[in-house]
Amino acid sequence: MADEVKKGLEGVVVAESALSHIDGDAGKLVYRGYTIEDLARDASYEEVLYLLWHGNLPNREELESFSESMAEDRAVDNGVMDTVRELAESDSNPMAALRTAVSMLATYDPDDSESDPADREANLRKGRRITAKMPTILAAFTRIRNGDEPVEPRTDLGHAENFLYMLNDEEPDDVLADVFDQALVLHADHGLNASTFSAMVTASTLADLHSAVTSAIGTLSGSLHGGANANVMRMLKEVDDANQDPVEWVQDALDEGRRVAGFGHRVYNVKDPRAKILGEQSEELGEAAGDTKWYEMSVAIEDYIKEEKGLAPNVDFYSASTYYQMGIPIDIYTPIFAVSRVGGWIAHVLEQYDDNRLIRPRAKYIGEEDADFVPLDER
Amino acid sequence: MADEVKKGLEGVVVAESALSHIDGDAGKLVYRGYTIEDLARDASYEEVLYLLWHGNLPNREELESFSESMAEDRAVDNGVMDTVRELAESDSNPMAALRTAVSMLATYDPDDSESDPADREANLRKGRRITAKMPTILAAFTRIRNGDEPVEPRTDLGHAENFLYMLNDEEPDDVLADVFDQALVLHADHGLNASTFSAMVTASTLADLHSAVTSAIGTLSGSLHGGANANVMRMLKEVDDANQDPVEWVQDALDEGRRVAGFGHRVYNVKDPRAKILGEQSEELGEAAGDTKWYEMSVAIEDYIKEEKGLAPNVDFYSASTYYQMGIPIDIYTPIFAVSRVGGWIAHVLEQYDDNRLIRPRAKYIGEEDADFVPLDER
Repeated sequence: MADEVKKGLEGVVVAESALSHIDGDAGKLVYRGYTIEDLARDASYEEVLYLLWHGNLPNREELESFSESMAEDRAVDNGVMDTVRELAESDSNPMAALRTAVSMLATYDPDDSESDPADREANLRKGRRITAKMPTILAAFTRIRNGDEPVEPRTDLGHAENFLYMLNDEEPDDVLADVFDQALVLHADHGLNASTFSAMVTASTLADLHSAVTSAIGTLSGSLHGGANANVMRMLKEVDDANQDPVEWVQDALDEGRRVAGFGHRVYNVKDPRAKILGEQSEELGEAAGDTKWYEMSVAIEDYIKEEKGLAPNVDFYSASTYYQMGIPIDIYTPIFAVSRVGGWIAHVLEQYDDNRLIRPRAKYIGEEDADFVPLDER
Repeated sequence: MADEVKKGLEGVVVAESALSHIDGDAGKLVYRGYTIEDLARDASYEEVLYLLWHGNLPNREELESFSESMAEDRAVDNGVMDTVRELAESDSNPMAALRTAVSMLATYDPDDSESDPADREANLRKGRRITAKMPTILAAFTRIRNGDEPVEPRTDLGHAENFLYMLNDEEPDDVLADVFDQALVLHADHGLNASTFSAMVTASTLADLHSAVTSAIGTLSGSLHGGANANVMRMLKEVDDANQDPVEWVQDALDEGRRVAGFGHRVYNVKDPRAKILGEQSEELGEAAGDTKWYEMSVAIEDYIKEEKGLAPNVDFYSASTYYQMGIPIDIYTPIFAVSRVGGWIAHVLEQYDDNRLIRPRAKYIGEEDADFVPLDER
């Protein structure tokens, strides 16, 4: 038993957490007991951050003070912005750029990097700064590579609204701001997903919060995790470009052994509750624009895959058409996932520091036991 | 049983690996079957990289071709060097600087970032480039913050020798080059330590090699992992500054509840074989310089902790005085650990990609089950 190889750590419980709970059979997700449906409908991303980091929903005064501090933290130091510019001009992959810039933020954080890395108050400040600055970095990167100048953050807009403003140099209307805020709420936490777990592994050596978040961004970039939402949209575009019936297209793809992005999840056995909410948003955006083709295409594929494979769509499946209809470039869908999930990463790292134990598993050695060393000249 | 919390994953086997094996009772460490003693004495760091990445020791022709390619990869792009300069001038923590610069290398790597992240041949090239460039980054950072200009890498020197040359703008003598090369060999791999595991978690989403190595650097920076070697030297300096008998100093420290750095290891029950070899190096360097005080102080502390606590020194304990006597600044001991361990990180990530499974454990939820959502205005 001791030598049983738990590749993937499927079902292995590595921590206790009071942050989020997934009932994979009921299709239910809660953050600290509140259902994701309630939070998406009635709580802002800032409220959810407060809930995850402090353990309770804020009252109006607490929320205002928190949101104000965070808004003031949005500006990014020139040193970091120079690197963001260089990366954008070098046509960097957006996740590599975000990972690099967030790593670099550590150097400019006013909290002493040499102090106790597990200091909760300092980490709440650092976490707030990282979360506040990530949208600024991403919007600046996206604008610069398009040949536009970055737009300075404003302190009078909400977190979601301000990101769209910085991205487009135009205040979003209420519908777009609200849809984007809901998307951020829906992606904020999800148990010990791979990126969150990587942040915990990093923090478990008493590495600092910036190291942990940097690990998580890298981990999120993979196609088996955050990279999936962009792949869904690339698929929908391919279907559209082929001018083909989506079900026929998917049949062909499956026949060719291709993987259809956006379906199945290690934890859910039924439809991901986040996919339901994002599906409704995708439909509403289509109706508002007078063209529901992306939504309809998605539904047709969902129904077919459900029937053929018994798989339900995950969060990535409907975030794709939602972001696309908001005019967001496809290759920043995954960075936007990071802009939201950073709230959960930080919350889990705070839990890890509060009751830390080094995360250090073992491998089963299957290599040679006793090799005779032969000096170079005799090889 | 399913809900047993495996905090720290102690004793949990998460992978099969043919790379290194630790016999914690015998105090034996092998890389692919070769004892660390044989490798430290007779193999260069480049030979060990080849062994870890390709599975066998190279013959002379293979080694020359490999070393030559790696030497040609040493130069770092201007975009990255500008960021290194900015970080050095902003007095960045050296591990934060190394993490940021390695993350940034991704953007300039000639292998397409959009291609298959698990492509073994591309990863061998990327891994070679990362490993070749890390010493260049670290030496440049260290020089710039001292007000000196970086020294361009040379292609006619070995990996260890060239690093010392770039650091000091002076070719090291053979003894120093050899001691440093041995230190790199000793630190190159060590099973699923936390930084290696974090690289595997990151790679398991099919994130790219640069993401995985970036995670590992952050993870290594913690004081429970790579950060320990610098802490050992800070302790030895404190003992020296106090002008106190080392054993008395340690007694006082233990009485005050302080932790003595450099002792104990989750895997070894006896003396770490790497500590033995580094202890000999520390002694030799002291004798060559005509002052063995750092070595003697270390031995006195080792004997006392062994007697009092039953703990043996780990790899960090003697690497400290070894690096110190080589004139290396204390706060780059941990980055030097990274400069070596990157070989192991890459080897484990290659194994992970070759038989990948997403690493995604679970947490036991201990938070609220059903919370009634109260709108902001009623809180």
